[in-house]
Amino acid sequence: MSVDALAARVRRGERRAVARALTLVEGLGPEADVLLTALGPPPEATRRVAVTGPGGVGKSTLIAALVAHLRAEGCTVAVLGIDPSSPLTGGAVLGDRVRMAEHDTDAGVFVRSQAGRGAAGAIAAATGCSVWILAASGFDVILIETVGAGQDQVAVVGVADVVTLALAPGAGDAVQALKAGLMEIPDVIAVTRADAPGAELLVADLRLAGIDCPVVRTTALNGGGVAELWATVAAGVDALAADGGLERRRRAGMADQLRALAIARLASQLPGAGELDALAGEVMAGRRGVSSAVDTAVERAEGPAG
Amino acid sequence: MSVDALAARVRRGERRAVARALTLVEGLGPEADVLLTALGPPPEATRRVAVTGPGGVGKSTLIAALVAHLRAEGCTVAVLGIDPSSPLTGGAVLGDRVRMAEHDTDAGVFVRSQAGRGAAGAIAAATGCSVWILAASGFDVILIETVGAGQDQVAVVGVADVVTLALAPGAGDAVQALKAGLMEIPDVIAVTRADAPGAELLVADLRLAGIDCPVVRTTALNGGGVAELWATVAAGVDALAADGGLERRRRAGMADQLRALAIARLASQLPGAGELDALAGEVMAGRRGVSSAVDTAVERAEGPAG
Repeated sequence: MSVDALAARVRRGERRAVARALTLVEGLGPEADVLLTALGPPPEATRRVAVTGPGGVGKSTLIAALVAHLRAEGCTVAVLGIDPSSPLTGGAVLGDRVRMAEHDTDAGVFVRSQAGRGAAGAIAAATGCSVWILAASGFDVILIETVGAGQDQVAVVGVADVVTLALAPGAGDAVQALKAGLMEIPDVIAVTRADAPGAELLVADLRLAGIDCPVVRTTALNGGGVAELWATVAAGVDALAADGGLERRRRAGMADQLRALAIARLASQLPGAGELDALAGEVMAGRRGVSSAVDTAVERAEGPAG
Repeated sequence: MSVDALAARVRRGERRAVARALTLVEGLGPEADVLLTALGPPPEATRRVAVTGPGGVGKSTLIAALVAHLRAEGCTVAVLGIDPSSPLTGGAVLGDRVRMAEHDTDAGVFVRSQAGRGAAGAIAAATGCSVWILAASGFDVILIETVGAGQDQVAVVGVADVVTLALAPGAGDAVQALKAGLMEIPDVIAVTRADAPGAELLVADLRLAGIDCPVVRTTALNGGGVAELWATVAAGVDALAADGGLERRRRAGMADQLRALAIARLASQLPGAGELDALAGEVMAGRRGVSSAVDTAVERAEGPAG
């Protein structure tokens, strides 16, 4: 199938085409930018929401509840999992996946786990490309699931319009990390298992620590607080859009993506393994300095297009 | 100080110059390859040993015991920590660092924690540069401490001549991961806390799983098995050297390093944030395709040298 034909099918929302397009862009190969060019700029109306938080806080349960809420509201939803340990989108055991089973035959829901390959910037750029494709194929909301810790996962957050951090009772460490500036302050905090002991203490800790973003209490297993959480998230996107912040944020994400695509293209033009190995041998033998070997490699990368 | 003067001081083993040179290469900036060129090829005799293993297995204790053994044998030792959670080289609490305190005033020991910044390939390349500098400054043995899991840490292992995996009793998961091919088979396995219950079961598990690399039992707190561990590691390096495998391994590591330095240089030639932001705005407005924007960025990178 030509890239143009694939783009046309993606725009019609054909699921197999969407899956194929996602596979194509994940590696940031030369066809990635051709496909995105064929798709044109991503629709502005799509809401892109990162749901981040450490393992074990009930992030997957929360996302499944958000999906159910959004479907009931008539919105189509794509879930893009960047967290490799996620039971929702990752290679999880059967029992853990059960919560999404109700959506398995629903054409308005699309769940995809992105292979987390390559450099930090490359993972975020691939996520940006995937979000672009999902938006072009017509989903109203894209939920991006990430652990939000470590360089890869932090960079991924740059792709989202707003970031929701899920914290469970007992997450005192996370509050300290937020307060110390070791973790980005999210746009919204969801306190999961809000009916469990310690939930109110967590909310009080957040306030004491001076973290003043909206905090929503959720009990996702029975849907409690989920409508309020979504309303808070949507209000956050709207507020950003009203003062121009949304456009700036999306443009910064696109700039990061262009940079990563450019680096991927330049890297693909470097000499192959055999030639690099020969250069390495010359350096080790003292016949060539590192600078000269790097010069040679860079000149080769610059050759084809320069 | 000029790069040539710095290189001269590194070769004389001046500790402050070594520390400064390590800082200089960690970011893979343009001066990194100039400094390495001035230093010339790294000495062949230096042994580079990765000590890898999950947190909590007693890796730091084992490394401290190896350092003590090597010093008693008259070898100088540098420890390069890539594991950010390491109590030995990382930003650990005071109590945990006590074990290395006996070496604090010993000029034959150098301990350095490498800031783990940037992409997977970049971290390994920076480690390669650091090992080069430590070798040039005359250390007989370089121990590289890494958790060995995750892409960054796996790539780091490529810098070493041999890899020692530390496993504690109860590490059944790690044995399964090794057996399933999810984890690289190391050159040597050190069973730590070999006097604890479960140590013999771990050894039996390794054998049952068909893992046939040398297994050495250690009780590092009292130095037990440490001399045997080092003898096994050194024999591994010698065996590799005898059949040409060592040269191949080091050349492959050097080729990876050249590739990462070339990518770092190409990336530094990309347009700045302002220009990328303007390109991103054009893409989002539909006035330009992604391919054209990436073309422009790549042409700019190729401009100065092409």
